[in-house]
Amino acid sequence: MTIGILGGTGDFGQGLAERLRRLGEGVLVGSRSAREGIIANAEAAARSEVVFLSVPPGGVEATARDLADELAGKIVVSVASPVVFRKGRPTVDAGPRSLAELAQEAAPEARIVAGFHTVAARALFRDDPLDEDVLLSGDDADAKAVVAALAERLVTGRAVDTGRLETARWLETLTALLLNINRNYRSETGVRITGL
Amino acid sequence: MTIGILGGTGDFGQGLAERLRRLGEGVLVGSRSAREGIIANAEAAARSEVVFLSVPPGGVEATARDLADELAGKIVVSVASPVVFRKGRPTVDAGPRSLAELAQEAAPEARIVAGFHTVAARALFRDDPLDEDVLLSGDDADAKAVVAALAERLVTGRAVDTGRLETARWLETLTALLLNINRNYRSETGVRITGL
Repeated sequence: MTIGILGGTGDFGQGLAERLRRLGEGVLVGSRSAREGIIANAEAAARSEVVFLSVPPGGVEATARDLADELAGKIVVSVASPVVFRKGRPTVDAGPRSLAELAQEAAPEARIVAGFHTVAARALFRDDPLDEDVLLSGDDADAKAVVAALAERLVTGRAVDTGRLETARWLETLTALLLNINRNYRSETGVRITGL
Repeated sequence: MTIGILGGTGDFGQGLAERLRRLGEGVLVGSRSAREGIIANAEAAARSEVVFLSVPPGGVEATARDLADELAGKIVVSVASPVVFRKGRPTVDAGPRSLAELAQEAAPEARIVAGFHTVAARALFRDDPLDEDVLLSGDDADAKAVVAALAERLVTGRAVDTGRLETARWLETLTALLLNINRNYRSETGVRITGL
């Protein structure tokens, strides 16, 4: 399976690419402008079966719209959260709908799955196993199952289905909560769901 | 220490009262109208050192305003989440600020701590240990420490400080995420923070 990472030059994208390569997956890293070792987002999208939309929150909707043709029929993982920093503190700047829902509207034929919002970019860069779950939301059950199988190879925990794509709203804001915890404890936290 | 539970006739309040009594704490259960074994919210607030504001989300702000005098100087734990059910699915109906922030504004001298949003009411009713963390936010560090110490006697996990009261916004919406997971898995889930 070829996995494309759009916006793959960011911290999260780089860490994810490295982890996926270690699993033996073929990874194509895309960016807005192609350069050595990095192809254009459009090419990465066109050549991949699963595409991580790992661009900054302000670019999610526009990237999905610009690449709607390339993303049509593809499994597209929306990992961004609408987090901004005010006086050094992580907070949320969002409308009522999630970035994942906006991406789905902008690329209607993409099979959007939202997830990985609780996985710290810095934790991806480490070498140790990721002791956490991955939370996934989406309206396409088959697409969600493919991403779940991949997620469960990346973490020691499990892939937890949070339900329809709408639930991405509270997945995305959960990132702000974890970033505040990270700030208090100087750590890179994740989440496990207990009681399943 | 005497602990008051306002709105203590609801599921969460009843379960919490039972767990606290098993710990040997004195518990006063309050309700809007006093009846056998249950006192009025105002009396429960006046006679307690720590007060759980366990009323339905629509009643948080009004209760805090009505009891602002009784709650002045008290440690007040806001546990409510702005969750509503649409077609059987849990979703959020909230403004930009959290119920905990609204309660703080309505009762300015209360020492508001937000927390326990990830602890399922039904799990409180069971007899087994609560295998989860308790997430707490608040602007009063001493009040937060008192609630943290109590929380760590209630669960096998730890009390995690999410930061300022503002972070209650994403704590409160996390309830909607967990309720959707509970719906998918027919379970009563909680949360543990990994990587601390």
